[in-house]
Amino acid sequence: MKLAMIDDQMLPFSELDKAYLDRGLYFGDGVYEVLRSYDGRIFAFEEHLARFERSLREIFIHGVDIADIRRRVQTAFEQSGHANAKIYFHITRGSEPRSHLPGKDLKPNFFLTVESLTEDTTAKTQGISVQTHPDLRWKRCDIKSLNLLPNVLAKLAVQSQNASEAILVNDANEITEGAGSAFFAIDGKENVLITRPLGPEILPSITRAMVGKVAEDIGLAIVERVQSPQEAAACDELFLGVTTKDIVPITRFNGQAVGDGQVGPICKKLMAEFAEFARGR
Amino acid sequence: MKLAMIDDQMLPFSELDKAYLDRGLYFGDGVYEVLRSYDGRIFAFEEHLARFERSLREIFIHGVDIADIRRRVQTAFEQSGHANAKIYFHITRGSEPRSHLPGKDLKPNFFLTVESLTEDTTAKTQGISVQTHPDLRWKRCDIKSLNLLPNVLAKLAVQSQNASEAILVNDANEITEGAGSAFFAIDGKENVLITRPLGPEILPSITRAMVGKVAEDIGLAIVERVQSPQEAAACDELFLGVTTKDIVPITRFNGQAVGDGQVGPICKKLMAEFAEFARGR
Repeated sequence: MKLAMIDDQMLPFSELDKAYLDRGLYFGDGVYEVLRSYDGRIFAFEEHLARFERSLREIFIHGVDIADIRRRVQTAFEQSGHANAKIYFHITRGSEPRSHLPGKDLKPNFFLTVESLTEDTTAKTQGISVQTHPDLRWKRCDIKSLNLLPNVLAKLAVQSQNASEAILVNDANEITEGAGSAFFAIDGKENVLITRPLGPEILPSITRAMVGKVAEDIGLAIVERVQSPQEAAACDELFLGVTTKDIVPITRFNGQAVGDGQVGPICKKLMAEFAEFARGR
Repeated sequence: MKLAMIDDQMLPFSELDKAYLDRGLYFGDGVYEVLRSYDGRIFAFEEHLARFERSLREIFIHGVDIADIRRRVQTAFEQSGHANAKIYFHITRGSEPRSHLPGKDLKPNFFLTVESLTEDTTAKTQGISVQTHPDLRWKRCDIKSLNLLPNVLAKLAVQSQNASEAILVNDANEITEGAGSAFFAIDGKENVLITRPLGPEILPSITRAMVGKVAEDIGLAIVERVQSPQEAAACDELFLGVTTKDIVPITRFNGQAVGDGQVGPICKKLMAEFAEFARGR
């Protein structure tokens, strides 16, 4: 007889909820997005949907109607009643008995959560501490997949050193990105914003694209290039970009103060401009 | 209000089954094992449990009693009534609202399935076709984790070329292992079994260890070294090691016949010896 056990409970395999047969659970065989709203409007909604569509395509999950996803996300957001909401959703290849090769007519699973989002004003006014960590991830980090164990392990490792984010560094001693964020440096003297070029090593961050627009608005030149941790540490200002928090200033990098250890003037300007941009859009 | 959606169904977040809050689903934050039995006895049970314990430790999942896992697996196996069974089980870090950093007192989730296993005699008598594919996986493949999307994608890619397994090749043009198996080559003239040394690039395969014992019994010398696809293609015999099928001969490698395209004499000897070993153990 085909059996299953959930913790200590034995049951016939046929009685399992489809959640226990999700390829997302067995293989991380799915992709996700995180969205937020500002004052009643979902920010960069179409950009997130476009990235999601690309992620699905890259892992060969077919037959998902993006208009349907848009409708579901919008409905859930409206039903929640939160003006400032955090929305998470994923699609997995579907549920079936475990086998690396998926069945032919598998129906993808959709899952979403929406909740109230509270701004972390302390992080914005005082900045955060970050720590570098080896980038152990796979070679397609441009796909926003459910394979996030290396990200979790990196976050756990730097937490024990009181850092809020792990800045991932590859074998070539290059910063790729944060374990859950995009990474930016500012050369204040040259008025330049530095960030890594897009490629398979990093997520095409929506916040990164939005930061780029805002940076242009305040007259910052944008330079896409790789940086070593040593180069980044010597920059005037550093910050992270993350959907749920937009811009988060970094005031300590590997235990050393960034600049004078306070949130810098350009970062402040960027945050103010981003706040307006996000609400006006 | 905190809401969730499962496909088109909206529900309060609080009513979600814990399976929908599993860190295994959100992050692949868990580790697994696959076991099989031969004629009523679980094969290499202690070796699998030891590897499982190591995997848990490497991703910092604490508080799991291996004696408890052993008891659950044995109970489920006996209850199933299958003399030749395939047993899958995993432990994830636990269920909670999604956040990269896990909560402090999270309780790990255990899940198991057991089913009848049928021997694939065609594969054993005729051999299988394999195709190489870039190894895109993370840098800790020695951990048997639920982050298996690159393995799935590799299997999908070679399936379209009628190959049954993807042989993963890293940037240095070295074979690492199969997407779901260990890889072996035989130099028939020298009576040598060649396989990659253990390291973070490959799983410490239990079948690999068992094949090593059986190979010694039939007088094969074992050489641990890396091989390029070109070197492997020129070997007299090739085969895979995988728990559910033990030894699977490879008769086509990247579209070319291996040796004379038939299952070779040393592979046959190994399979016969393994079958006895597995049942006698």
